[in-house]
Amino acid sequence: MPKTSQRGQLMPESPIRKLVPLADKAKSKGIKVYHLNIGQPDIQTPKVALNALHTIDRKILEYSPSDGIKSLKSKLADYYHRFNIDVDENDIIVTTGGSEAVNFAFMSCLDPGDEIIVPEPAYANYTAFAIAAGATIKSVVSTIEEGFALPSIERFEDLITPRTKGIMICNPNNPTGYLYTQSEMNQIKDLVKKYDLYLFSDEVYREFCYNNTPYISAFHLKGIEENVVLIDSVSKRYSECGIRIGTLVTKNKELKNNVMKFCQARLSPPLLGQIVAEASIDTPEDYMREVYNKYLERRNFLIDGLNKIPGVYSPIPMGAFYTVAKLPIDDADKFCAWLLSEYEYEGKTVMMAPASGFYTNGARKNEVRIAYVLDKEDLKQALIVLKNALEVYPGRKD
Amino acid sequence: MPKTSQRGQLMPESPIRKLVPLADKAKSKGIKVYHLNIGQPDIQTPKVALNALHTIDRKILEYSPSDGIKSLKSKLADYYHRFNIDVDENDIIVTTGGSEAVNFAFMSCLDPGDEIIVPEPAYANYTAFAIAAGATIKSVVSTIEEGFALPSIERFEDLITPRTKGIMICNPNNPTGYLYTQSEMNQIKDLVKKYDLYLFSDEVYREFCYNNTPYISAFHLKGIEENVVLIDSVSKRYSECGIRIGTLVTKNKELKNNVMKFCQARLSPPLLGQIVAEASIDTPEDYMREVYNKYLERRNFLIDGLNKIPGVYSPIPMGAFYTVAKLPIDDADKFCAWLLSEYEYEGKTVMMAPASGFYTNGARKNEVRIAYVLDKEDLKQALIVLKNALEVYPGRKD
Repeated sequence: MPKTSQRGQLMPESPIRKLVPLADKAKSKGIKVYHLNIGQPDIQTPKVALNALHTIDRKILEYSPSDGIKSLKSKLADYYHRFNIDVDENDIIVTTGGSEAVNFAFMSCLDPGDEIIVPEPAYANYTAFAIAAGATIKSVVSTIEEGFALPSIERFEDLITPRTKGIMICNPNNPTGYLYTQSEMNQIKDLVKKYDLYLFSDEVYREFCYNNTPYISAFHLKGIEENVVLIDSVSKRYSECGIRIGTLVTKNKELKNNVMKFCQARLSPPLLGQIVAEASIDTPEDYMREVYNKYLERRNFLIDGLNKIPGVYSPIPMGAFYTVAKLPIDDADKFCAWLLSEYEYEGKTVMMAPASGFYTNGARKNEVRIAYVLDKEDLKQALIVLKNALEVYPGRKD
Repeated sequence: MPKTSQRGQLMPESPIRKLVPLADKAKSKGIKVYHLNIGQPDIQTPKVALNALHTIDRKILEYSPSDGIKSLKSKLADYYHRFNIDVDENDIIVTTGGSEAVNFAFMSCLDPGDEIIVPEPAYANYTAFAIAAGATIKSVVSTIEEGFALPSIERFEDLITPRTKGIMICNPNNPTGYLYTQSEMNQIKDLVKKYDLYLFSDEVYREFCYNNTPYISAFHLKGIEENVVLIDSVSKRYSECGIRIGTLVTKNKELKNNVMKFCQARLSPPLLGQIVAEASIDTPEDYMREVYNKYLERRNFLIDGLNKIPGVYSPIPMGAFYTVAKLPIDDADKFCAWLLSEYEYEGKTVMMAPASGFYTNGARKNEVRIAYVLDKEDLKQALIVLKNALEVYPGRKD
């Protein structure tokens, strides 16, 4: 049998999905599993999007342009203008989900041996795509004690080598829910300028910033417009993760030409998803407000409930719909597997993502990522299960 | 401005899509362009597929499993059984188009510096994905004079080095329409066995084999089951290129685990496309036969017409819906650009793909790929335009 690639062997398994076989087993035994592991909202997709889907009147489901349907790009530009992001449709490339945008960004910007600096904990698939591109992630670890604020910019600067090509941020942050402040963003801007780096900025959760915390896009930073590579997706804001429509936005013409070659090689982004995404941009304000309020309520309920469980601590996330919490346990990987394979509370259990997968060095063994994508009643039950599980877990460690 | 990746710079532009700006310009001047450049059929998508699309009753357009929806995989297994391809649903991974299947196959099997041997002319995007994976294509050139038959197997063996990891074939072939014979496939099998290579086999055109020429899948070859990586797509057979649903099929468990990491990193294939694809597998025989007969009629009409134009020669393609033809010209890249930017015949012109893009060394400057994806009347007009164009083209060369 021929060998598989080293790159493939090095690729991490998804910390969000790797426990799926255990969850399936639990379900087959009739156990109810509360899914706090994955950012799959339970929110209904907007009617305007579903209507667009049902009224597609094409007779041939054909390729779209490699960079996406023109009318979608034009509406996306309008959408970005609402957030004072000054881009036009020619700066926008439609991708197969935000995932492909990250992949194309790394493949187009990074060569094998190149390095990017990433504040951690970070979305696990950045590592996967960096490995796929042959690049290395240098991590700057933020801590739960400091509420996952941006570590001091000197710690970024310490990591810069001749191979450093960029900084990758996620804002609002997955997995921590942290929102970067103006002062933090300015520091990042100065560093990007000083060393002429790419700034990869994943901003798919921009609709979910709580308590009037301002959202600062990488494109709001003056003087580094050509360095910014914006990663975006319609998945989370319209609860349509399955349509696989994202965007890569760049004002850097040379980079855009490079990205377009990857786009052409994969021919086109999904046609049906593009039609749905285009309609989604007209989602009424009412829907957006209702969803926002729902997440806000869930956040308050979840964080409050978590912090009431003895030995558990979670900071208050200011954006997105995740939090990283610290549990009184030896090892979150073991605990999360144990919850699915050896535990049940009144026929129920909880699935969470061990936070180890969000750190490249696997540090912080006692943290988990929790997504608050279930309704309040389910969250309540999940908290009860978690509380009881922690009381009997053999690896408890205070 | 930071540098873009060398890999991106090395990636070729799509020979099929790179002339699009010139075509757009011609159209904006009111010129009718006959698209013979791209494998986008004009055939209507089956009703059963469009009905499935219109009756989707999901309220949340959510992620699907990373390897695809179980019921789709199960129906795909049944589909393959019809062709005596002995695989089950666990061997099947649903991908975002056949393109992603090629990409994942190369990323999972090949490391930078690895080599694959490809008979040429070959589908241009194999090169693109090989470059993306850091691998090198070693080509064995087949010739129009020999009807693009497989070159002697000794020529493959001559290219084998310690870095050779696989052979990539496309059968029925894009761009030549050639169908490999049993004897040719046996020779490939022996080579794959002798050197323990991967056999990447792109078989997306299996429904289109003419004149009772037998279709031999790589999975029909005994004794190399774990070496075979089948690339497939529903795009061409059901005229639904835009839904972006393909498959990677492997019986090699270690490879499958590797591929799954790439699948997890990109989360899931398109949900809507999967629903449409699943329904498409029930397309009635009548539709398939009608489409088949249409292509057969077009093929006969086109090849006959081409060979009647002085100086033009095309072999008779036995499968798929392309042919590579030789024209009495200096340079197909120049000629195809000239057709779009400087020529028109009664307000009409023709777009073709220069064959140079299907050879890694850019040989065979006087060949073009022609897709017969238009109806007979349009093909007739296109042939008239081509005939007249060749009479006045300043770079004519007999």
